[in-house]
Amino acid sequence: MTEASSTTVGELSELAVLARIFPRLPDADAAIVGPGDDAAVISAPDARFVVTTDMMVHGPDFRLAWSTPFDLGWKAAATNLSDVAAMGAVPTALVVALAVPPSLDVSVVEGFADGLRAACGALSPGCGVVGGDLSASDTLTVAVTAFGDLQGRAPVLRSGARPGDVVALAGQLGLAAEGLGLLFRAGVDAQGRPDAELAAELRLRHPSAIDAQLAPTPPIGAGPVAAIGGATAMLDVSDGLSLDAARIARSSGVGIDFDSATLGDDIERALGGGEDHGLLATFPHDSVVPAPFRVIGRVTEGSGTVSVDGTPHDAVGWDPYSGWDGAAG
Amino acid sequence: MTEASSTTVGELSELAVLARIFPRLPDADAAIVGPGDDAAVISAPDARFVVTTDMMVHGPDFRLAWSTPFDLGWKAAATNLSDVAAMGAVPTALVVALAVPPSLDVSVVEGFADGLRAACGALSPGCGVVGGDLSASDTLTVAVTAFGDLQGRAPVLRSGARPGDVVALAGQLGLAAEGLGLLFRAGVDAQGRPDAELAAELRLRHPSAIDAQLAPTPPIGAGPVAAIGGATAMLDVSDGLSLDAARIARSSGVGIDFDSATLGDDIERALGGGEDHGLLATFPHDSVVPAPFRVIGRVTEGSGTVSVDGTPHDAVGWDPYSGWDGAAG
Repeated sequence: MTEASSTTVGELSELAVLARIFPRLPDADAAIVGPGDDAAVISAPDARFVVTTDMMVHGPDFRLAWSTPFDLGWKAAATNLSDVAAMGAVPTALVVALAVPPSLDVSVVEGFADGLRAACGALSPGCGVVGGDLSASDTLTVAVTAFGDLQGRAPVLRSGARPGDVVALAGQLGLAAEGLGLLFRAGVDAQGRPDAELAAELRLRHPSAIDAQLAPTPPIGAGPVAAIGGATAMLDVSDGLSLDAARIARSSGVGIDFDSATLGDDIERALGGGEDHGLLATFPHDSVVPAPFRVIGRVTEGSGTVSVDGTPHDAVGWDPYSGWDGAAG
Repeated sequence: MTEASSTTVGELSELAVLARIFPRLPDADAAIVGPGDDAAVISAPDARFVVTTDMMVHGPDFRLAWSTPFDLGWKAAATNLSDVAAMGAVPTALVVALAVPPSLDVSVVEGFADGLRAACGALSPGCGVVGGDLSASDTLTVAVTAFGDLQGRAPVLRSGARPGDVVALAGQLGLAAEGLGLLFRAGVDAQGRPDAELAAELRLRHPSAIDAQLAPTPPIGAGPVAAIGGATAMLDVSDGLSLDAARIARSSGVGIDFDSATLGDDIERALGGGEDHGLLATFPHDSVVPAPFRVIGRVTEGSGTVSVDGTPHDAVGWDPYSGWDGAAG
């Protein structure tokens, strides 16, 4: 039996904290030199590598009252792996920098490492953590940088969509936004502060929506599948389908028209809800769209426009936590 | 004439802030796909890449009352480039994640970008910024991940030193610690708070020490030079010469003995002062130690021990900002 630790990060040396984290981190098959030296050395078999970076800040991006430490590690890995996959690449490795308040219990850092490991194992086996950094901060902050291997293929950019292409999606629409809506409505106390007990209860009643928000499972393997299947453009849907479709449309100098019949019961939430972390891709009209992609629209002549059943749709930015206080909750 | 901006980050959209930053960032020769897509694609000619990551947090790691935004960008680049160089690699690219309080003036972010550009240009021409992320946080936080190219060579690890090797250093000892000491003594007001005016005045009187602390110039080119010259072990001296030498000694299963005559007037500061960001390397005893390295000691039989003129020296950890409040200053 392992009892929960009650030691804070500040009571241990950085070395002692790292000694607790390292055994929990996933190994990377691509690591030639792993953690422990000035830098790591990673294999890049086709003489190129894909890289993306993302920072998550307590308050604007997550709340420990809602997310377990495991959720936080899972989401930090999952969202970065999704950006790698959106280039058509196979994720190979992550580096993770963490800044934590000295008063934080070490078990939070351990749970975070467990979440990183579980997400890599479930979403992209063989991908692991090859390095990191641990700092002190009043504001719990996570910075992940993720790498991928294109396996000799051209990267799938946002700029390659052509009129006549079909528009296809792998992953779910609006579920993460539904989860966040639930948390904001029923996961807060009378003063509007995030409440851990209410959030846990909510999760029992709405597991798929809350999980989509707090520990998403993006279709990482679909990224290389799309590239092999001839995708002309692709991106990770993180800011809402409509806004992200407009990014492909602008970069490619085309229009994108969605078929409302494919967008589920709540079309506005499907178009506007953020953090889906599905993959939106375009394929030539005569190609067989590979599973798990499903066709949801087509590429038209246009100049950055998005429409639904031919009617223009204004993409609205999505920033649900805006203005929240980073220190509380 | 350009007047100083008085717009805060919070008054602009993320897109508008990025539009101000992007033109200021240095291009990377190795970029195949640069910023603007889900991820960047970087060249890795020998099918491997070196990667290191580091987070700098306002309070524990820097104070805006002492560092200009330009200094901050410079130091964020310089310290990461030094870790790449310490593997014997040539730096190729950086990704930079920045979390800033919405009340921060946009000119701070612009100055930070200018510092990144200047440091890359001065320390490692051709290295540039290939991607990044901008978030909101109460605590100004910078996370840099840096990449390098080994040019077909084996990485120089900490574990390769052998008894009989000479110990050599590129860079300065104790100057950054002298600068920090000056700032703590004479760069604070009567209440002990960092003071911008006092720090600026101090910098005029002690430019080399203050610059070594706030905008260091590590000998980046010396990293590949050491690798080509046959270095058996190497690291970036960031936590003090004695402590970092002990890391090579432990990893290699040897002792390291310094010659006190090579350590300058203040031997304890040379051994204990942090943030030198010089390169400490070991070379076979019969090799010609390449410039700018100078011999400062030798590798002995031992098991992780450090000595000076044969007398054991206890390495002491170095954490000058410990306990400082991250929000103030």
